[in-house]
Amino acid sequence: MSQTTASLGQAILDHADQLARFSDMEGGLTCAYLTPAHRAAQDQLAQWMEAAGMAVRIDAIGNVIGRYAADPAVTDARVLMTGSHFDTVRNGGRYDGRLGILLPIAVVDALNRAGIRLPYHFEVVGFAEEEGLRFKTSFLASSVLADRFDPALLARVDADGITLAEALAISGLPGAGDPQALRAAALDPATLLGFVEVHIEQGPVLLHHDLPLGVVTQIAGSSRFQVRVEGQASHAGTTPMGMRKDAAAGAAEMILLVEERCAAAPTLVGTVGQLQVPNGSSNVIPAACTFSMDIRAGADDIREAAIADIVAGIERIAARRGLSAQVERVPPVNNAPCARWLMDQFGAVLKKRGMEAFELPSGAGHDAMMMHRITDVAMLFVRCGNGGISHNPLETITAEDAQLAAEVFVDFLRHFQPLG
Amino acid sequence: MSQTTASLGQAILDHADQLARFSDMEGGLTCAYLTPAHRAAQDQLAQWMEAAGMAVRIDAIGNVIGRYAADPAVTDARVLMTGSHFDTVRNGGRYDGRLGILLPIAVVDALNRAGIRLPYHFEVVGFAEEEGLRFKTSFLASSVLADRFDPALLARVDADGITLAEALAISGLPGAGDPQALRAAALDPATLLGFVEVHIEQGPVLLHHDLPLGVVTQIAGSSRFQVRVEGQASHAGTTPMGMRKDAAAGAAEMILLVEERCAAAPTLVGTVGQLQVPNGSSNVIPAACTFSMDIRAGADDIREAAIADIVAGIERIAARRGLSAQVERVPPVNNAPCARWLMDQFGAVLKKRGMEAFELPSGAGHDAMMMHRITDVAMLFVRCGNGGISHNPLETITAEDAQLAAEVFVDFLRHFQPLG
Repeated sequence: MSQTTASLGQAILDHADQLARFSDMEGGLTCAYLTPAHRAAQDQLAQWMEAAGMAVRIDAIGNVIGRYAADPAVTDARVLMTGSHFDTVRNGGRYDGRLGILLPIAVVDALNRAGIRLPYHFEVVGFAEEEGLRFKTSFLASSVLADRFDPALLARVDADGITLAEALAISGLPGAGDPQALRAAALDPATLLGFVEVHIEQGPVLLHHDLPLGVVTQIAGSSRFQVRVEGQASHAGTTPMGMRKDAAAGAAEMILLVEERCAAAPTLVGTVGQLQVPNGSSNVIPAACTFSMDIRAGADDIREAAIADIVAGIERIAARRGLSAQVERVPPVNNAPCARWLMDQFGAVLKKRGMEAFELPSGAGHDAMMMHRITDVAMLFVRCGNGGISHNPLETITAEDAQLAAEVFVDFLRHFQPLG
Repeated sequence: MSQTTASLGQAILDHADQLARFSDMEGGLTCAYLTPAHRAAQDQLAQWMEAAGMAVRIDAIGNVIGRYAADPAVTDARVLMTGSHFDTVRNGGRYDGRLGILLPIAVVDALNRAGIRLPYHFEVVGFAEEEGLRFKTSFLASSVLADRFDPALLARVDADGITLAEALAISGLPGAGDPQALRAAALDPATLLGFVEVHIEQGPVLLHHDLPLGVVTQIAGSSRFQVRVEGQASHAGTTPMGMRKDAAAGAAEMILLVEERCAAAPTLVGTVGQLQVPNGSSNVIPAACTFSMDIRAGADDIREAAIADIVAGIERIAARRGLSAQVERVPPVNNAPCARWLMDQFGAVLKKRGMEAFELPSGAGHDAMMMHRITDVAMLFVRCGNGGISHNPLETITAEDAQLAAEVFVDFLRHFQPLG
């Protein structure tokens, strides 16, 4: 393998560059669910999977799944699955998600060229949707595989008023959005050995510890909210400051509350990523202001305590200012622990290769979080450059780190021992 | 006159209701510059002016100007002008601006029916644009009459990317947007006796004093700004609170600064009416946040001192948070004092009719502010119901107050004495 794998790192980065050319925007990478760029990325992944020796299928939600079939001598082979998403945030990075598809494709290609078969089916999934950019609901793709897809989401609309059902109907995907076809795309948990995901860390921890790789202990749950503050429109020039019911000023106070409260506990983070005065005019006191809140922590109780304080604070601020505030909670995702037996197999490879078996939690959500509902999961994090920036064109990894991650992954696959 | 004027108040309100049917939106009143609804309102005003006995012209920027010609016996008649705007803010009130056109039309109609001619030409202007809704620049219409129109504004675009020049070219207006035609539409100040404007107060002062009418002392200048705060996009789940450069959190702090500083001096008001995280995602720390600021005060020095403090504060907040802030100032409009000789003629009528000659400043900008550049101006304010709310569908006046205002206006016109 050594000769073959020596160039894997650069090959993975090159593929990430090529995949990033399919974009919904000029001069940056946006790949929203079921856009022409998304379709092109899907086709490209399928082509690379086939070239690497995998049998490829595309399911009803748009997942690209490549199977590197088990050694034919193994008659009762089950499936070890890996993968991540190929959709992106707006103007995002090219490694978020995609590294977890491109790295295993490169690894399978190397195994295939070396004539190495594994004693289990190894499947690589390109999840079609994780970020929630287009339909404001995330994990669409993994929820289908995990049989957790909510058919009510089919009525959800994008910014142009197109429903998910309509987008699927014209997508050319099998089933064309039929709820039964989506249901039928669910995996049978009995066939699964587990799910492992390689992902760029999207944070600064490995960088600060000067480590290329880390083993994830758990994936932090998140809670998302949509908040609508309502006050009263009035003339900007004639309404005395003390007589205003200004929805934007109230929202500003709430945003600073989120920031302050989330700085008060370790691992806790809170973000207002969307913010708008709908139809605002410069000479009208805002009648309404809407914003999103995303709150996460390393432990469910820390997160829930912060949420309780923030929601109470929002109500207090609204009451004091004569405003109303509606806080709509998107169902929370609880923390997903990684399986110790899978973590230990990654840790053993790292130690064998002279690296620290460094363990860290994931603050970001990942497809593995949803796959945790049906099988044991683990994640291998790869160091993120540029201070740990992600969801940003500045997101970066080095060819050396990608190479190390690929070598560790090959080792992991070759020595993989199923549970029990 | 008494029999004729007895129904003027209700007639004015009825006309406001009829005019409000021409709207760019369903279920509310929006009349943006040069939309089909705007054109329909313009035609309706021209028709009412003609029916009231006026000769009507429509100028190159879309103003509807009706002339009630002077008594033929007066050979060297000059022009006393009145009027206000018929465009609106988004989902605005039906009296803002329009009262100042509909009331004098009703008054002329009454004079005409009574066979009363005035010793001067009396012109009623429906200004086509004052609010700045469509092209984010206000006083387009009055600036043409006052020969203060900036041809650079022709390149300004609306939300659909249509330039003012293009909108004028297809408008059917004389000149079709030709800068020379716009220049030629300017009034000759030597022909003017003055400009008086009737307007709903758009504030609570008359209501609190239990007075139907007031005489305006000055129109408050305003300063408008567009602020763009820039930080760094990063992942909402993985970036510790202390490592963020969050443009929205910075903007929130700036909005509260505007509110706090503007509460610190009488007559001072500050409003953030537009606010947005462009292309925000709930799981991405905002890289940018934009907002408008509108700052006004009863005196130029109070306003400028507040602006200096706020701009310095914005820079301080940005520096502390590792953000950048661009503050772009729209050229300020200074306070416009009303002419004492015109104010006194309104005051004399009020007193003669047993009312208080109550004087108050205007916090809102008005067409009279621009007309002040070429002639003496005065304004008569009419009480605003519902706590003084304006720029809101709740804006209201009573038929009784409209009636009183019409009677006062008739008296003013019949006893009007030019200066000197």
